[in-house]
Amino acid sequence: MKIKQRAALFIILVQLLLAASAAAQVRHEINFPDVLGYKTLKCDFHMHTVFSDGTVWPTVRVDEAWREGLDAISITDHIEYQPHKQDVPPNFARSYEIALPGAKEMNILLIKAAEITRETPPGHFNVLFLQDIDPLNTEDLIDATKAAAAQKGFIFWNHPGWKPEHRGWFDIHTQLYENKLMHGIEVTNGESYYPEAHQWALEKNLTMLGNSDIHQPALESETSADNHRTMTLVFVRERNADALKEALFEGRTAIWFKNQLIGKGKYLEALFKESVRIGKPHHRTKDAVWVTLTNASAVGIEMERVGTQGPEKLTLPPNATSLLKTARAEGTEEIKLSYVVRNFLIAPDKGLPVDLTIDLR
Amino acid sequence: MKIKQRAALFIILVQLLLAASAAAQVRHEINFPDVLGYKTLKCDFHMHTVFSDGTVWPTVRVDEAWREGLDAISITDHIEYQPHKQDVPPNFARSYEIALPGAKEMNILLIKAAEITRETPPGHFNVLFLQDIDPLNTEDLIDATKAAAAQKGFIFWNHPGWKPEHRGWFDIHTQLYENKLMHGIEVTNGESYYPEAHQWALEKNLTMLGNSDIHQPALESETSADNHRTMTLVFVRERNADALKEALFEGRTAIWFKNQLIGKGKYLEALFKESVRIGKPHHRTKDAVWVTLTNASAVGIEMERVGTQGPEKLTLPPNATSLLKTARAEGTEEIKLSYVVRNFLIAPDKGLPVDLTIDLR
Amino acid sequence: MKIKQRAALFIILVQLLLAASAAAQVRHEINFPDVLGYKTLKCDFHMHTVFSDGTVWPTVRVDEAWREGLDAISITDHIEYQPHKQDVPPNFARSYEIALPGAKEMNILLIKAAEITRETPPGHFNVLFLQDIDPLNTEDLIDATKAAAAQKGFIFWNHPGWKPEHRGWFDIHTQLYENKLMHGIEVTNGESYYPEAHQWALEKNLTMLGNSDIHQPALESETSADNHRTMTLVFVRERNADALKEALFEGRTAIWFKNQLIGKGKYLEALFKESVRIGKPHHRTKDAVWVTLTNASAVGIEMERVGTQGPEKLTLPPNATSLLKTARAEGTEEIKLSYVVRNFLIAPDKGLPVDLTIDLR
Amino acid sequence: MKIKQRAALFIILVQLLLAASAAAQVRHEINFPDVLGYKTLKCDFHMHTVFSDGTVWPTVRVDEAWREGLDAISITDHIEYQPHKQDVPPNFARSYEIALPGAKEMNILLIKAAEITRETPPGHFNVLFLQDIDPLNTEDLIDATKAAAAQKGFIFWNHPGWKPEHRGWFDIHTQLYENKLMHGIEVTNGESYYPEAHQWALEKNLTMLGNSDIHQPALESETSADNHRTMTLVFVRERNADALKEALFEGRTAIWFKNQLIGKGKYLEALFKESVRIGKPHHRTKDAVWVTLTNASAVGIEMERVGTQGPEKLTLPPNATSLLKTARAEGTEEIKLSYVVRNFLIAPDKGLPVDLTIDLR
Repeated sequence: MKIKQRAALFIILVQLLLAASAAAQVRHEINFPDVLGYKTLKCDFHMHTVFSDGTVWPTVRVDEAWREGLDAISITDHIEYQPHKQDVPPNFARSYEIALPGAKEMNILLIKAAEITRETPPGHFNVLFLQDIDPLNTEDLIDATKAAAAQKGFIFWNHPGWKPEHRGWFDIHTQLYENKLMHGIEVTNGESYYPEAHQWALEKNLTMLGNSDIHQPALESETSADNHRTMTLVFVRERNADALKEALFEGRTAIWFKNQLIGKGKYLEALFKESVRIGKPHHRTKDAVWVTLTNASAVGIEMERVGTQGPEKLTLPPNATSLLKTARAEGTEEIKLSYVVRNFLIAPDKGLPVDLTIDLR
Repeated sequence: MKIKQRAALFIILVQLLLAASAAAQVRHEINFPDVLGYKTLKCDFHMHTVFSDGTVWPTVRVDEAWREGLDAISITDHIEYQPHKQDVPPNFARSYEIALPGAKEMNILLIKAAEITRETPPGHFNVLFLQDIDPLNTEDLIDATKAAAAQKGFIFWNHPGWKPEHRGWFDIHTQLYENKLMHGIEVTNGESYYPEAHQWALEKNLTMLGNSDIHQPALESETSADNHRTMTLVFVRERNADALKEALFEGRTAIWFKNQLIGKGKYLEALFKESVRIGKPHHRTKDAVWVTLTNASAVGIEMERVGTQGPEKLTLPPNATSLLKTARAEGTEEIKLSYVVRNFLIAPDKGLPVDLTIDLR
Repeated sequence: MKIKQRAALFIILVQLLLAASAAAQVRHEINFPDVLGYKTLKCDFHMHTVFSDGTVWPTVRVDEAWREGLDAISITDHIEYQPHKQDVPPNFARSYEIALPGAKEMNILLIKAAEITRETPPGHFNVLFLQDIDPLNTEDLIDATKAAAAQKGFIFWNHPGWKPEHRGWFDIHTQLYENKLMHGIEVTNGESYYPEAHQWALEKNLTMLGNSDIHQPALESETSADNHRTMTLVFVRERNADALKEALFEGRTAIWFKNQLIGKGKYLEALFKESVRIGKPHHRTKDAVWVTLTNASAVGIEMERVGTQGPEKLTLPPNATSLLKTARAEGTEEIKLSYVVRNFLIAPDKGLPVDLTIDLR
Repeated sequence: MKIKQRAALFIILVQLLLAASAAAQVRHEINFPDVLGYKTLKCDFHMHTVFSDGTVWPTVRVDEAWREGLDAISITDHIEYQPHKQDVPPNFARSYEIALPGAKEMNILLIKAAEITRETPPGHFNVLFLQDIDPLNTEDLIDATKAAAAQKGFIFWNHPGWKPEHRGWFDIHTQLYENKLMHGIEVTNGESYYPEAHQWALEKNLTMLGNSDIHQPALESETSADNHRTMTLVFVRERNADALKEALFEGRTAIWFKNQLIGKGKYLEALFKESVRIGKPHHRTKDAVWVTLTNASAVGIEMERVGTQGPEKLTLPPNATSLLKTARAEGTEEIKLSYVVRNFLIAPDKGLPVDLTIDLR
């Protein structure tokens, strides 16, 4: 019997074995509420595999996304930086192709993508929603982004504060921005947050993104407030790639980064309102009232009082219920407590103001 | 300044300090669905304090209940067994009285109760919904239970298999049962399960209970499938003491014990149906189909195939989503997979049969 | 059969049951090295029970100490503040008496103690190593501390920064100090650190203590760097009460507080040297060398470079090995890396300077 | 500027970035005592990468070994089974070559190896300590193992019970065994234990091995008794590849599998004796004595009484201290408690008998 025939035989058996273990994987959903009539998708649009400088086979990225509760991912292998090319000959289409069958089986939206890689400045740029990556493999950055735009790709600037000594908004960025060759910007990447990118995003109406840029295997198998990958929440009309693309171009995003939410005020406010449920007062005395505050989201909420009433600090751990005792004056029908949510950033260093209204009627 | 005056001053200050730390406690709800039009309350009707042979002040039992996600508890200090009486003079009313203010603040239903304590046989009996415990402090067991019944108390037999050498259903139990002086029975207590009690409950239509019988402080601050107190789920019309009493007398309960559910088939079936959500098939090939199974309950579900199709074993971890791939024949509109849920016990050693129906249309 | 006889019978049985569960408790030792020829004991000298304003029976404090890896504890129930006295008539000797048998069984050094409780200022004072607490129950603070000193008690000032509006070193403290009626001071208490107390301890050579002041049951069953009770490390000649007393009077202590060590430089330096093992270089290239750094202690060590070589920050997690790569020049026989240990405080805001010496020969 | 030049520039920068994160990895040592004058190495001799059917780059296997506390590993990519060959052209030398630099930096012994892959029977065989894998790529199994033996490779039979319908010891295995072309056997592989292989190993004096056979990234970053990879303990004269090879040929191994130890009685007995420290009795009454039992190893020890004294079951959790109370007769100088360690298997279904001796003098 020939080696090939022998191999064919146990390919089947080995694959059965792998399928069994893959099926055993469990997914823990990440709780973020739908807002403003949109579904909230949990997304990571920046990650690598052995097809550039990552250390995992593309299927691993889908397995991780399933386990960690993500809805959509894109594998963004570097086009120009191929340190494994001696062993893995460059083929820009392959990481997507290899990951796709598992993505379908696990209902993960897999977006075909690539990373255009230049020194800083101008730096690195991801392009999502590509049909063909090859045309982007060209020397001039403007040419590459034009090739991306020709495919209606969504282009964003990666880790814009990566190299402190070279960081900044340069002419090339203005050129890209004015020619609609840059639609979004990473305000956070992995463990880093870039306040200046946050400011640029607000001023220039660039879509805010936060991604993991993961190269190694993910060490955690479950998402928690204390230990979660940096991700982008995208508010979509439907759970499909077209709606995702529309939402990205329209800037309907927020970022979950080290248990902070970063985004436009209207989205953070909606996330807060849909996440925090204020119970009916279940106990009252002559001068105090007790209510429960349930935080149904995955983010721990940290508030500081800005009004005159309520505890100075109020922490609502994720997926948990907290007890609030507050004073009441005789005859009050409603208590309004004014806070700022310190870890919901509507601008650099600026938390989201909220009111907690307790109905005593 | 006198000691008393001095003391009065910092009573206030110390209490403020304690209040602050109590308020910081977080509650993690235990996910069990409401069923058959009833609300599902998580209850523990058997626990002790320093007022009998426990080692905590009564307020601790309320704090624990809040943190662990319980809805209703009763403190059941022994009437006749008072090992701390040298230091804590017997006073049957006190554990309830001391625990009550915190229970109101934390919205825990606190049911006034006591444990009638005799050698085995006949053993120990809890009585719930008492107004006055003192009349139960009488030598004859029948008299004590009659005094309980006169207050419309709900009476159940505790840990009926506690002492293997003396276990069994004796004449005294028949006498209690026939005179409606015993309405329920602990099928599980702490770490123990009593199959014979399970059988008696089914045959005699006794309400099934499972309780912690906790004496020490609770070590865990959060409930999980791997590590949870033994508790009784009660299916009530409303979340109040009257409705709870009605449900107990009518036998609307199930038990959560070491990640097994124990109860009448109709309740376990309803819990299963409301807990497990079968997704729409999100991917199909010519001969296979993929769906998600989401278990929205706190219990890990362990199934074994009894039909011809589907994986031999199917485990649905709590609060998680699992992936199911199953074969499909051409033209099938619906796939029905037949399983038995091994850890949903409708009788000793008898799991709940269920069908998983996948709609392919 | 009479109630008393009946009770006697199952006292035995219930106690057997309790013994079984107590025996099942596991102890995780806290790793701190012995230093300078002394044994290092892990101690907590401030805690409460139902005999003052705590919420646990005294035995619980011993069980907790065993599980969490403590060597010595003292129960310091308030003398003057007895909020449970309606239910638990004051008896200053009882918390010690009740806790003692278990302490002997579990080999926990139990030090008889009490808390003298006055408004702030002067505040609260613990006294350790008492024979009889009753003589301390007197109106005048000086009288009470003299009664304590007459028994050769070790007296320390509790949470000296407790009430910010009244904090400070007052004449009464000078009077106590100069009359040798105050030997030590809590630099930390529970979640609080008092920099001014830290400074006073250094200036006046008061023994530094850090204690839990726990009132509720301990929620954690195992000690970790991330989650540990505030405790005092005492450096003793032998593991017994006399040696402990000697060490306290001689100021041989350090404090473990929120994963910081606080104490005199010589003790912190010795703890560092005995905790951190620098491996032999296991790999070297022309210009770099690799060594392992093993931190055998329970404290996570956080260092910042003050020299010119080595990584800017160096973190050595507890009970773990870290990898260090550092540059080497041709012909070097020894590399010395200079750091300051940020979380080993030898004075307020002043970390411990250390050298890491790598032997290349 | 050309792409190549550009790439060269940020290769350096990207690598710096990766180096930083790699250095941040922490290693938790696995506690197993040295025995009988040998060092105890924690080893895994069976794992895969993208160079056969695994899903990680070879460096990942070294990172995992470091983090999980392993001392020695071998990457055993299939020679004949290369499902990724379209993207990763077969090159048997590469997984070792790529993993080697990191192994040196992290002080992991990396053993060059390969998996000879045939249908079952005869099945799969790993060869360790190879210089050149290419000569093993030959059709006839005997030829391949002879090529391995010519390089003084250590050859063992993998997962001998893998396919239940084809399992068994066939003529081919006798032929390999008698010609010294098979030196060891996997008694456990991943999640599976093969009692018949255990029996064969004992009867034929084959070296017992237990390995992970890991294909996916390791999900856990720290080893615990509850969650550890299947591994082989090897008892070596020195920590180097030659001594490891000698030990394997001489059969000096034990297996840690799902918190059971499997091996020859003399090694398991020595591991027990060096792991369990019996304290001096710290408390005694007229008829009882209390001692601590400290288990300094990573394996949880589960014992059942076979003598007449001591508790029926005795569990010693890993890296923890347990309390033992036992009866003593007046005048006894020594208490001997006889147990069998249920999870130390010296043969299929046969635990290790041990005596616990408590010295009362």
